[in-house]
Amino acid sequence: AAHGARKMEDYGRFLALLASALLVGFMSVILSLVWVFHYREGLSWDGSLGEFNWHPVLIITGFVFIQGIAIIVYRLPWTWKCSKVLMKFIHAGLNTIAMILAIVSMVAVFEFHNAKNIPNMYSLHSWIGLTAVIFYSLQLFLGFAVFLLPFAPVHLRIALMPIHVYSGLTIFATVIATALMGITEKLIFALKNPAYSASPPEATLVNCLGLLLVIFGSLILWMASRPHWKRPPAENAKILRPIAATPEGTEVESTMTNSNADKSDLRGNTEAARKQNIKFDEAGQRSTM
Amino acid sequence: AAHGARKMEDYGRFLALLASALLVGFMSVILSLVWVFHYREGLSWDGSLGEFNWHPVLIITGFVFIQGIAIIVYRLPWTWKCSKVLMKFIHAGLNTIAMILAIVSMVAVFEFHNAKNIPNMYSLHSWIGLTAVIFYSLQLFLGFAVFLLPFAPVHLRIALMPIHVYSGLTIFATVIATALMGITEKLIFALKNPAYSASPPEATLVNCLGLLLVIFGSLILWMASRPHWKRPPAENAKILRPIAATPEGTEVESTMTNSNADKSDLRGNTEAARKQNIKFDEAGQRSTM
Repeated sequence: AAHGARKMEDYGRFLALLASALLVGFMSVILSLVWVFHYREGLSWDGSLGEFNWHPVLIITGFVFIQGIAIIVYRLPWTWKCSKVLMKFIHAGLNTIAMILAIVSMVAVFEFHNAKNIPNMYSLHSWIGLTAVIFYSLQLFLGFAVFLLPFAPVHLRIALMPIHVYSGLTIFATVIATALMGITEKLIFALKNPAYSASPPEATLVNCLGLLLVIFGSLILWMASRPHWKRPPAENAKILRPIAATPEGTEVESTMTNSNADKSDLRGNTEAARKQNIKFDEAGQRSTM
Repeated sequence: AAHGARKMEDYGRFLALLASALLVGFMSVILSLVWVFHYREGLSWDGSLGEFNWHPVLIITGFVFIQGIAIIVYRLPWTWKCSKVLMKFIHAGLNTIAMILAIVSMVAVFEFHNAKNIPNMYSLHSWIGLTAVIFYSLQLFLGFAVFLLPFAPVHLRIALMPIHVYSGLTIFATVIATALMGITEKLIFALKNPAYSASPPEATLVNCLGLLLVIFGSLILWMASRPHWKRPPAENAKILRPIAATPEGTEVESTMTNSNADKSDLRGNTEAARKQNIKFDEAGQRSTM
């Protein structure tokens, strides 16, 4: 009973964090719209500032918020009864939407720059932003080829999963850093009389938007990096588990671990088995393809 | 033999990454000095731009480079024969140096602003930067009180270690994001005729500096997040390991794991033991205090 209570408490903590992340994410999108419609020129697609304004709105909606949700989608407890392959499609689908929105938002800036004869790709924001989009596309393509298509051998998936996770989180953090640079640029360029340094209401609002992006990123990274909130191993993992039938077999992440602990030749095999275990765990290959 | 060869290969990979991080970190410091001395007003402490210039130099040297090294200091294989408490002192000491340099670099900006009647704390850079310094001080104070002083009970250390690790890495990433915003601000403000958008040599050099900071951060985060590069458990952890005496006992991270696998009542205890294990592992409480 104490164990069950602890599990419920942990579940409640996850839900509270998820609710906070969704709230902060929604507020970021709303603030970007308030910024663009109340303080700036609104949205249009005609080479004017209204076209530029798609850039912050689509980046915050797609490249920050949707990418963030895509990162933690495997961790939602009510999806654990869904097949792993369905969740992979949702993960890949959300990331594809995020990439399309990021590309459209970049086109908006290039078209605006070209219409106004402003040089492209001169700023650190543009250098790091373009690098992030290129790595993101690569990540999406490799993820699709290795983890979604059924052709890659298990040892390749095992080898690439830690890299996939690391790249995903690093790209996500870099995207937020790039958004902060973009906000800085835009406020300096757009606010004249009163200038940014005079802290007009627009400056305060958009600084708050920047803070929200950092909080959103921190929440997503926390949720994504807690091992006990991982999607539990699926049924077919139990095939690998000949003896173990503990009452806690349904516990998150316990299946694969027990399968090794139950091997008979403990002395010789434990270390190798544990390593295999960690690898399987990291690869998320505990489930259906 | 194959196992030994794999270990050597892994060791070589760690050294290559460490060398890259050191190289990229040193290059960042050098580039900040080239920026300040070749393109800007050099260094001074008189309320002029020369005083402001301490800000990028000290942030990149202390708050990025030294903090990055402090993060991975436990992972240097040749320190594994040193006592854990010595390594804690080095970790805390490097972070203290980084904090002092960050504070001095902030004083330089405030003094410069006040001398030139420029408002303080109006930009997103300043908001997030100050937040990062406050959290960094808190992290240092809590880390000192909980992990270095001998008073905190083990269960508190176990509970706080994952938070300590997460905060440390998140603050580090936030500091780099703040540096990128600072670079963006400075290049826009300082470059007039030719402007930043005309890509003069200074703009290209400092954009490259920004890219180096991102690469440095990515290398540190990769090294810090590989579980197999963790400092191995210390001798006294073996007290908790009544039966196990595998030939691989000296292997990184194997000690605590084996201690559980060797318990006799596998059925009932494995899951609980594994959890305990993970907690111990996360807390790094495998060693001397």
